[in-house]
Parts: sequence; structure tokens; C-alpha cells
Amino acid sequence: MQPDLLPGHRAATVLHDLRHASPLVHCMTNDVVQTFTANVLLAIGAAPAMVIEPEEAAQFAAVAGALLINIGTLTAERSDAMLVAIHAANESSTPWVLDPVAVGGLTFRTRFALDVLTLKPAAIRGNASEILALAGEQSGGRGVDSTDDAFSALPAAQRLAQYTGAIVAITGERDYVTDGKNTWHVAGGGELMTRVVGTGCALSAVVAACCALPGSRLDNVAAACQFMKRAGEQAITVSHGPGSFTPAFLDALYALNAEALA
Amino acid sequence: MQPDLLPGHRAATVLHDLRHASPLVHCMTNDVVQTFTANVLLAIGAAPAMVIEPEEAAQFAAVAGALLINIGTLTAERSDAMLVAIHAANESSTPWVLDPVAVGGLTFRTRFALDVLTLKPAAIRGNASEILALAGEQSGGRGVDSTDDAFSALPAAQRLAQYTGAIVAITGERDYVTDGKNTWHVAGGGELMTRVVGTGCALSAVVAACCALPGSRLDNVAAACQFMKRAGEQAITVSHGPGSFTPAFLDALYALNAEALA
Amino acid sequence: MQPDLLPGHRAATVLHDLRHASPLVHCMTNDVVQTFTANVLLAIGAAPAMVIEPEEAAQFAAVAGALLINIGTLTAERSDAMLVAIHAANESSTPWVLDPVAVGGLTFRTRFALDVLTLKPAAIRGNASEILALAGEQSGGRGVDSTDDAFSALPAAQRLAQYTGAIVAITGERDYVTDGKNTWHVAGGGELMTRVVGTGCALSAVVAACCALPGSRLDNVAAACQFMKRAGEQAITVSHGPGSFTPAFLDALYALNAEALA
Repeated sequence: MQPDLLPGHRAATVLHDLRHASPLVHCMTNDVVQTFTANVLLAIGAAPAMVIEPEEAAQFAAVAGALLINIGTLTAERSDAMLVAIHAANESSTPWVLDPVAVGGLTFRTRFALDVLTLKPAAIRGNASEILALAGEQSGGRGVDSTDDAFSALPAAQRLAQYTGAIVAITGERDYVTDGKNTWHVAGGGELMTRVVGTGCALSAVVAACCALPGSRLDNVAAACQFMKRAGEQAITVSHGPGSFTPAFLDALYALNAEALA
Repeated sequence: MQPDLLPGHRAATVLHDLRHASPLVHCMTNDVVQTFTANVLLAIGAAPAMVIEPEEAAQFAAVAGALLINIGTLTAERSDAMLVAIHAANESSTPWVLDPVAVGGLTFRTRFALDVLTLKPAAIRGNASEILALAGEQSGGRGVDSTDDAFSALPAAQRLAQYTGAIVAITGERDYVTDGKNTWHVAGGGELMTRVVGTGCALSAVVAACCALPGSRLDNVAAACQFMKRAGEQAITVSHGPGSFTPAFLDALYALNAEALA
Repeated sequence: MQPDLLPGHRAATVLHDLRHASPLVHCMTNDVVQTFTANVLLAIGAAPAMVIEPEEAAQFAAVAGALLINIGTLTAERSDAMLVAIHAANESSTPWVLDPVAVGGLTFRTRFALDVLTLKPAAIRGNASEILALAGEQSGGRGVDSTDDAFSALPAAQRLAQYTGAIVAITGERDYVTDGKNTWHVAGGGELMTRVVGTGCALSAVVAACCALPGSRLDNVAAACQFMKRAGEQAITVSHGPGSFTPAFLDALYALNAEALA
């Protein structure tokens, strides 16, 4: 049975809060999606900052509204800086979000991701393969693609949420967002979003921005998913392929309002 | 005398194979073109993955359909990871492609590029200056620009192909693709493509994707060149400058079909 | 009292010189803006090259028309390469430009930026918070945002110009460009430019390109600011948000002419 859809008015409240607070999101993310991630955050009304030198990452994580840890192009050096930032974030009660890109198949990042699970992430956002791998189950993932269905990974996501205390978002054709007990379902978007690099990674940054907001974290994270699904849907209707999708998507995020979320 | 043009129906067959196989391309490329490279691969129907940590690069090169080595922003650390990946690729019969960005003028990358020539690249894609430099001839290159004509570099490309066993593509206003004996000529594109960063680097990624396919590697590499030339030509007709070119180009790659290649 | 506006015919002369010389700009810049910076330089008629390995950076800084040092994602390793490049640039009389991203709040980059101030930058481009921080004054900056007004930072910019010998550009809603004695004022642009990552960083690259040109460096730097303001203004009139702004902005830079600058 499908969990309930996040009501549009809840998403609208979170959007209002996001634009009012314009949270500063400290992004430690992969080399491929830096620009798109920053532009997505700016378009929706948050403030991105990419700070990676270990001393500075610790300083910055302490003052940022939220910290994003994305392991897409993890290196030994970057993983050290991320650990320093996560600890600084925890000491300052800055929420941090994990995007476990392509976890499961690759040894180095899998070890890192499993290690940081114990460091109290506020939220985890991944596709079905990634969530299954984090929860210790078999994954059919191939690189960053997910060959698993989001709904089938929901039980694993619920266990992962219970074990880590994080809100867990499994994204795919439909998204499921759970705190281990309650679950929202988010629909929308479209296949074209998978033909543009970084839509998932940028969503994780928006999840981080929403973790900086007051109110129910479960609702906040589900709202982040809803923003992207709705803007994606709108952009698809006016684009002719993945090239024209990207500007249309950023325009849609910028113009997003309560009406569009209803 | 100009070599023959690659027939459109051959390019169409390669495009069909590419979309059917959707090869996973392990990209170890420069910092400037990561996003565009990934989006070009996604638009045409391949699957990009950027994996750079040495242990992971070795793991991934072994399972990927092809490996791309682009030295545009080479560092000592990255060159070590690339070597590990190339050796793993060779052990697993994963074809790997060299993009020798700005080779010739800069000492560190030139040494690296000459070293890896002996490690059996499946293909090499560069502009005339770069191919001349790899073949040990004088180059008039200035940074990443090519001040040499592609056709005039064809004899050097043929020698390079014979020496390395690679398919060599020299790209410019016209492209020439040779296995040292047979050569295809590819026309199309336009000057605006040189005003957008990464069109050459992204072509090398598409060359890598096509090296993962069955059939004649010479035809496959020439087809990769043809895809970019044709999509570029189509994008130029609907764009007003290099800004609107980029989305139009990705849309054209996404929509590319046998008719457009005829 | 507002300084005089840079006359349009002066900006037009600089644009003409820029397109004629097409200076090669060696960019050592942050991870987030690499592609956009390269595309901005290509669109306006300069030639970008990102070279970061220390040995190569020294080689390249010596032959480039100008060197850009942007500390947005500074690391210990990158700062060493930058120092090598700055020294090579100075030995070869290659002008170099400092973009002190987010200086003030973060210790590592602040130390680096203050150190290199003594190495004779040709120009410094920052927002009000960054210029105040470099001049040793309190800054209200929050990450890369500037919460200070450009005009109020003009006295600090003038002192900084006198101390370093650099042309100093403070950019914001209006830009001020000073050599410590004479000051130009540049108007235009619009709020949407702050919703796209890298417009300031790319401006610094254009400033570097203009520092490679003959004539008054003060005028050249102010002209760089004017190019971006005017192209931004034009792009805003035809765009629907930050997504459609970017292609329109690159198209406007490409099409920029004396008439538009008048």
C-alpha cells in the first residue's frame, strides 16, 4: 500500500520558510555537480557555499545552516575534510545530510558511507540501490544509476531511519520519505530528469537547506523532494530535450509558489 | 586528396548500437568539462560515471564499458590514479581513450601522454596541434587552441595510429579518423562550437562510449565524430550565440536519429 | 558624491582591443565556476586555459596574457601551485588578478590573500565585504554574499589600491573601480545576476583578460565591469529566471558591441 502523498499546503509552508530564512548550505559535493547544485540552491532561495579545505570546512560547518556530504567523487583527502566538517557540524548542532552516490559497488566510498552513518546524519537521500546498500542489502546498482524500484526499498529505508535517526528519502520515479515510522510519498517529475546530470545530487542540497528550517524534519525533507518533482514536471512541459530542460528547471524553481505546489 | 566521408547509414547503425547498449563510460577528465561531458553522454544515450580515487578507479575501470583519460587539468595525484585505471582497464579488456589536451607545450602532461601511448589506447582524439605533438612533430598550438589544420596533421595521425594501434581522430573544421591505413573524413559542425568549452572533450567521451560497441572500431569512432558534428550543425541553426548553443546542442544529441545522419 | 561613469566609447575601445588580442587567460579558479568562467571568456573573445599542476602552472603563467587567482575553493595544495604561478607571472611581467572570494571569515584563505597582496597584483576584484576584509576592516560578509554596500567600501578600496599598486574593483549593485586616486563608476546589471553562481568570479576572469591589454589599466578594468553589467542587463530583459539568464547572458557577451556599450 502506498503511503500518503505530502499535502501541497505543507510543501508550500516549507517553501515559504526556506525563502524567508535563505539558509546557508555548506556543500561538500562531487566535482560533476558543483555548478548545478549551487544554481539550484540560488534559484530556490537558499545560499550555497563550497568550502573544502579541512580547517575552513570545520569553521564553516559550524556557522552554516546545514552541511551536505556527497561522495560522488570521493578521494582520501576529501574524505578527511568531510569527517572534520561532520564533527564540527555535530558540535554546533548544524544538521548534515548524506548523499551516498553509487555506494555499494565501490569499496572506498562504501566504507566511508557506512562509517559516517554512526555520526548522526539529519537526513540521507539516495536512490533505491544506494539505500539498499546502506541498509546492508543486495543492490542491483550500476554506477550512479539505480536499477531498483524506490517502493521496494522502503522497508530498508525504514530500518535505516530507525538505526541512524535520520530522515531517509529514497528517490526514483516516485519518492518515499520516512522517519522509520511515518512515511510520505511524493509524485511528479519525469524521465527527462534522469538525462541531466545532478538532479539527484542537487535535490540532496535542497534537502540540506530544508533541514536548516524549523518544524517537522520529515515534512521538510519531503517538501524538498516535492519542490524538485514539481519544478521538473513544469520544465518538462516546456523543454525539447535535456538541454532546454536545465534552464527551464532553474526558472521553475525560481518561480515556484504555493499555487504550483497545490 | 580528401578521404571518403563516413556514410550516414554507418553512423546510424552505430547510434542504434549505442542507444541499445547504453555503455557505462568511466570518465577521468578535467575539472572544466565534467558537467558538460556527463550531460553529453546522457543526452546521446550513454551512462557517465566519474570515479577518481585510485582504488575505486581500478575497480570501476574493470567493470565499465570504456575508460576516458583526459589530461586537461592533470595533477601528479590524478596522473597516478589514471595509470592505475588504465592498467585495470587493460587487464579487463576495457577499451580506453586518450584526450591529450594541450599536449606539447606543457612538460608534465606531455611526459604523461607520451608514457601512456605505450599502454594500448583504443583511440586517441585531439586537435591537429595535439596529434602533431604526440607524433613527435612541431606544434604551433597555443594552450588548448589548435593553430594547425586537421588535414595537414593526417600523415602524423596515421603514423601515430600505426605506432600505438589506436584509432586516431584529428578534429577541427573537418575531422579525420584513421587506423593508420584507412581513413574517414567527417564534415559538419561550425565555428560556434569553438566558442563553448568542452565540445572536444565531450566528443572524446562519446568516442569512448563508441569504443565499447561491437563492430569496426574505425567506423565507431568516426560515427562519434559525426554525431557531434551533426548535432552541432543543427544547434547552430537555432541558436543566437554560444549560450543558447549549449541547450540546443544537448537537445539535438538527444533527438539525433538516422534521418538526421543521412 | 558618485564618481563619474566610465564613458561608453572607452569601454568600446577596450572591447575592440580584447577581441583583436584574444588574450590567453590562465585561470586558477574555484571548483564551482570553472565551466562558466571558460564560457564567459570564450563568449567575449578571450581564450581560457585552466592549468593547475605546479610545474605547468609556472610554465603557463609565463606565456599567458594574464593570470587569474580565485580562492573560492582554496586548498593547501592549490595555494602552493598558485604561489608558484604568481611568482612566474611576476618574473615574466604577466599581470595577475586576485579574486578574494569570501575572504575575512575563513582563516586559511584570509591568510593566503593577505600574503599575496604583497606580490603586486595588477587588479583585485571583490564585493564590498571582501574588499573591506582585505583592507583590514570589519566585514559583515556571510560566505560569498556581500552584506555591505559597494560605495561605502570605496575609501577602503582606495587605500587598498594605494597600498598594493593594484586597480581595485568593488562590485555590487553598482561597481566602483579605482587606482587609489581616480575612480570610475559602472552601472547596469540587475538582481537576477546574484541568483546565478559565478557571475562575480567570471567578471574577475574578464578583468584578467583586460589587464593583458595595452592602454590605461584603470579604464580596462572598468570596461570589464561594464561588459558584464551591460550583457547582464540585456540578458535579464529576455529571460524568465536564473536558468534562462545564463544562455542569454553568454549570447549577449558574444554579441556585445560599441552600440550596446554607448
